[in-house]
Amino acid sequence: MKKVGIVMGSDSDLPIVQKAVDTLKSLGVPYEVHIYSAHRTPKEAGEFSQNAEKNGFGVIIAVAGMAAHLAGAVAANTTLPVIGIPCKSNTLDGVDALLSTVQMPSGIPVATVAINGGVNAALLSCQILALSEPELAQKLKDKRQKDAQIVLEKDAKVMEQLN
Amino acid sequence: MKKVGIVMGSDSDLPIVQKAVDTLKSLGVPYEVHIYSAHRTPKEAGEFSQNAEKNGFGVIIAVAGMAAHLAGAVAANTTLPVIGIPCKSNTLDGVDALLSTVQMPSGIPVATVAINGGVNAALLSCQILALSEPELAQKLKDKRQKDAQIVLEKDAKVMEQLN
Amino acid sequence: MKKVGIVMGSDSDLPIVQKAVDTLKSLGVPYEVHIYSAHRTPKEAGEFSQNAEKNGFGVIIAVAGMAAHLAGAVAANTTLPVIGIPCKSNTLDGVDALLSTVQMPSGIPVATVAINGGVNAALLSCQILALSEPELAQKLKDKRQKDAQIVLEKDAKVMEQLN
Amino acid sequence: MKKVGIVMGSDSDLPIVQKAVDTLKSLGVPYEVHIYSAHRTPKEAGEFSQNAEKNGFGVIIAVAGMAAHLAGAVAANTTLPVIGIPCKSNTLDGVDALLSTVQMPSGIPVATVAINGGVNAALLSCQILALSEPELAQKLKDKRQKDAQIVLEKDAKVMEQLN
Amino acid sequence: MKKVGIVMGSDSDLPIVQKAVDTLKSLGVPYEVHIYSAHRTPKEAGEFSQNAEKNGFGVIIAVAGMAAHLAGAVAANTTLPVIGIPCKSNTLDGVDALLSTVQMPSGIPVATVAINGGVNAALLSCQILALSEPELAQKLKDKRQKDAQIVLEKDAKVMEQLN
Amino acid sequence: MKKVGIVMGSDSDLPIVQKAVDTLKSLGVPYEVHIYSAHRTPKEAGEFSQNAEKNGFGVIIAVAGMAAHLAGAVAANTTLPVIGIPCKSNTLDGVDALLSTVQMPSGIPVATVAINGGVNAALLSCQILALSEPELAQKLKDKRQKDAQIVLEKDAKVMEQLN
Amino acid sequence: MKKVGIVMGSDSDLPIVQKAVDTLKSLGVPYEVHIYSAHRTPKEAGEFSQNAEKNGFGVIIAVAGMAAHLAGAVAANTTLPVIGIPCKSNTLDGVDALLSTVQMPSGIPVATVAINGGVNAALLSCQILALSEPELAQKLKDKRQKDAQIVLEKDAKVMEQLN
Amino acid sequence: MKKVGIVMGSDSDLPIVQKAVDTLKSLGVPYEVHIYSAHRTPKEAGEFSQNAEKNGFGVIIAVAGMAAHLAGAVAANTTLPVIGIPCKSNTLDGVDALLSTVQMPSGIPVATVAINGGVNAALLSCQILALSEPELAQKLKDKRQKDAQIVLEKDAKVMEQLN
Repeated sequence: MKKVGIVMGSDSDLPIVQKAVDTLKSLGVPYEVHIYSAHRTPKEAGEFSQNAEKNGFGVIIAVAGMAAHLAGAVAANTTLPVIGIPCKSNTLDGVDALLSTVQMPSGIPVATVAINGGVNAALLSCQILALSEPELAQKLKDKRQKDAQIVLEKDAKVMEQLN
Repeated sequence: MKKVGIVMGSDSDLPIVQKAVDTLKSLGVPYEVHIYSAHRTPKEAGEFSQNAEKNGFGVIIAVAGMAAHLAGAVAANTTLPVIGIPCKSNTLDGVDALLSTVQMPSGIPVATVAINGGVNAALLSCQILALSEPELAQKLKDKRQKDAQIVLEKDAKVMEQLN
Repeated sequence: MKKVGIVMGSDSDLPIVQKAVDTLKSLGVPYEVHIYSAHRTPKEAGEFSQNAEKNGFGVIIAVAGMAAHLAGAVAANTTLPVIGIPCKSNTLDGVDALLSTVQMPSGIPVATVAINGGVNAALLSCQILALSEPELAQKLKDKRQKDAQIVLEKDAKVMEQLN
Repeated sequence: MKKVGIVMGSDSDLPIVQKAVDTLKSLGVPYEVHIYSAHRTPKEAGEFSQNAEKNGFGVIIAVAGMAAHLAGAVAANTTLPVIGIPCKSNTLDGVDALLSTVQMPSGIPVATVAINGGVNAALLSCQILALSEPELAQKLKDKRQKDAQIVLEKDAKVMEQLN
Repeated sequence: MKKVGIVMGSDSDLPIVQKAVDTLKSLGVPYEVHIYSAHRTPKEAGEFSQNAEKNGFGVIIAVAGMAAHLAGAVAANTTLPVIGIPCKSNTLDGVDALLSTVQMPSGIPVATVAINGGVNAALLSCQILALSEPELAQKLKDKRQKDAQIVLEKDAKVMEQLN
Repeated sequence: MKKVGIVMGSDSDLPIVQKAVDTLKSLGVPYEVHIYSAHRTPKEAGEFSQNAEKNGFGVIIAVAGMAAHLAGAVAANTTLPVIGIPCKSNTLDGVDALLSTVQMPSGIPVATVAINGGVNAALLSCQILALSEPELAQKLKDKRQKDAQIVLEKDAKVMEQLN
Repeated sequence: MKKVGIVMGSDSDLPIVQKAVDTLKSLGVPYEVHIYSAHRTPKEAGEFSQNAEKNGFGVIIAVAGMAAHLAGAVAANTTLPVIGIPCKSNTLDGVDALLSTVQMPSGIPVATVAINGGVNAALLSCQILALSEPELAQKLKDKRQKDAQIVLEKDAKVMEQLN
Repeated sequence: MKKVGIVMGSDSDLPIVQKAVDTLKSLGVPYEVHIYSAHRTPKEAGEFSQNAEKNGFGVIIAVAGMAAHLAGAVAANTTLPVIGIPCKSNTLDGVDALLSTVQMPSGIPVATVAINGGVNAALLSCQILALSEPELAQKLKDKRQKDAQIVLEKDAKVMEQLN
């Protein structure tokens, strides 16, 4: 199976990345994590992206906050699908990162998920890989059913929980 | 090749869909377009999504404005990758549609592109399909080079254009 | 009397629901609480809504955060009045849920109350039921007077409280 | 049947009110329209609201822009359900009216619909009245089906419309 | 000297009111504080405002959060100058209160100060009264100089404070 | 009677100022209009403000857009009451001017009115001056009644106007 | 004198660039204009920036809209001062470009000017170069005086212009 | 070498200023820090700015929150480059300060950095001074390489850090 690459702009994004990694692990999807900053290490971020396809990556998840250029910088250097996770930082509640990630100009898409959306970015990468991995596709369907089951079990108990 | 499904919530979104269709056509990717509203025809929107995989779709693009629930409603009914295009309507400049599309809860991702981003949604769907379609992958790389060439040609003339 | 249905998208919304429940209890209005997610359990959310009228519900309150589609998903499946409570989550201060709940397209209204507005959603459901329940109507008027009285009692003491 | 009262803060809101009136007419629901400003004619707005119940109104729709206090001012003077339509004015794209209408304090709810949402406010008022008017309830269900039919007819033609 | 009336919508606004009161006291300006809610006690809020001029008030400060209608409701019932303090509540960081207070329609102005701006509302009320109170005018000028002096004393020490 | 000073930052603000001037004229209040920019002519703006009191001004209205510093710059140089009108410019719908005008730090208040609120700024200045001008106070009350009358006349005709 | 480099992401930004160019011309400052996209031509944008210093540039102005990464991408590849002009595009009124340009992470500053601020970007570049160009410094001071003079001339006529 | 002037509007901004000072110290750039408020000490703020050039300053950094006029007030009184740091205060998450700082009118630029961006403001001031200080220019390049090295070292360890 192709690998999922996860690139974060700073190690302050590690908690978000951890959630993505946990999700990938639970679904048995190979991954590789890097810290490359679009601004502090543009050369390395670019080279990683240019070589991603031939290095066995199928999807890249980019994680960044503030003027979050990382997903766009990766997307500019590969035609693999790139998923962007905008991160909330100390000011502006993540709006800056969301707009910097999602409002990409025509020609270079970034598949943006919710602010701090580590789990969903991982799931989306799996949905993409699953198009040619039937076993992974089945796991995603199983997870959906299990997630639904959890909701329904909570529903069964909710009337008792209310005072 | 798997088809790209495009679902719009209302025919007022046709200009955005047209751009996506033009892009898919230019890259030779099969597609099918539908109008299903998450609110006015929830049953049909749900059934389309549940059957999308077995009906030969690989990716679904959902296009909606205001409280744009369509992409989420589709994503809730399939494990195929779902791309959301938030559309600008008469008020709020598209912010409502952007947040309604991108801020999905954990478990059900929507790959969100820019407000009114018809071209990029189509390109993203192609990038996803191209993972198992080498010819399409090559077309995307060629398009990138051509797009770059257009910029560089404009650059060569820009000093003359300025008064 | 018809029942008030309360549906929440996730059990993290329980504190908001508790306030609604307390209000309904204090006014003697029957209610039933469920956890159904528009995204994780779309089928159950839909069926609950389609059957709500015949199951004795008069109003449904839907509680959700982020891309809060639940109220819209319920409203799409019933012609009973649906009240939406947008919930504040970890980012964006509830703006995402507010816009996702209130900006419904023409044809499918959602009666939206303030962010985290559990008490007001319950009161609104009572005002609606009270149109054909004179006793409840009287209770609402009594509560208004009592609320006013509380303000006036505080007013009588406020000058002493200031240093 | 009880009447729907529609109060607008200024005659600049007439186009929004016209849509509400058209919807009520098409469903055969009696209505009465007034222009009362929460700020320029607070006495008349208050008296209208205090007397609304005994004057045969079942629901009141309040329409206002900017610091849109009208719905709140009506709601403060009646325990009938009050629906607020926030209107877009020359600046701020309706955000001011939306927040002024929806963010009501605990105790006095306003059922807020989308910015400029004249049709949905009327439909919501009908859904409320329909709880004790079976014929109206049926009309709302018929309208839903008809609205769905229109979408499906558009869907049947959409592939031809795209170039 | 005419009195400054301070009306707050809820006793949760007391910390903001305390700052205003402290400022008025320090300048020797008479004041009277009330709790009247535009929504829970509209009659009392209205009567207070209608009688404010003949009861010896010269300026009224209204303090409220969320859909902050209090300042507008007071202003609608008097031609005395009305100052509005928008208060930050649990969601939206005070934006709702700011827009609900400042975006008044033509004809009924509210002199709005910063979110939670208790001191400035009091100072503004003093500046207004000072137009016919030379002694108060002088106190305001003295306070300005003293405030400036405090800044300059801090400036004199700042280089030492930095590590 | 003391004069109202109106200072605008740029002659692009003339339409807003015209509305203020019309209002002052209609109420017989003397005024003087200037163009001084807080940034292009800080010295003149400062001197005007420092001398305003002794030059017979009682209130100053400052009109500016974008990073609207003019009202604050005037307020920093006088203890007269200063009214700020934030103006909408080509971007951001007036939010920049609103926040730059209203969010003044403790010590230097600016009485802010709605975006582009020329009429209300003028009325507020009259309400302030009217505290020691009984004739002007009466005119303001008469205008209120007349404004109310206009609304009520429109109300009397509105049912006919609707189709 | 060192040159000012102006890089725009797309030729749709030409009107903004034209204003910058006009300003530089009027002050006799040499410049060079390029179209390089951070996303479509990342290599060329990077090389231009890396070589800017040795190619005689002293300051670079980057002009871009939407998820405006260009200024950041240039700044990541040079230690010359980089000025960013965020451009308004079809949605969001320029907020996306503003936040994408100004919210740079620690280590890589971008000197951001107002949305569409072509003139000010050019003036700022001149102020920077003028630190070692006394003649240019004098021209900037002369321009300031001339700009002030224009305001004062308008001020002299404004009372006549008002009806 | 010319000095960097740092002016803050209030000593509550000291933590932001400290970061700027630490950065300047680490690069051996002379600086001077002042507390001058645009509103409480407009005269001193103006005089400091008017005399900055002849007093040996090359760049001025202005630090302020809320309606952050300080950078603009400094810029209005000098043609030296002025850098603005908008500071987050208790409400609005720094948006007010950002817009008040960056949205300067044509003619008077302020080079705005990120909200609370003390380090970047200092670096930008060094980049400006470095145009005529080759040694400082080299230090900035060395710092860039060192910053990149830190990222790459973190990258080398990140896979181990994830559970």
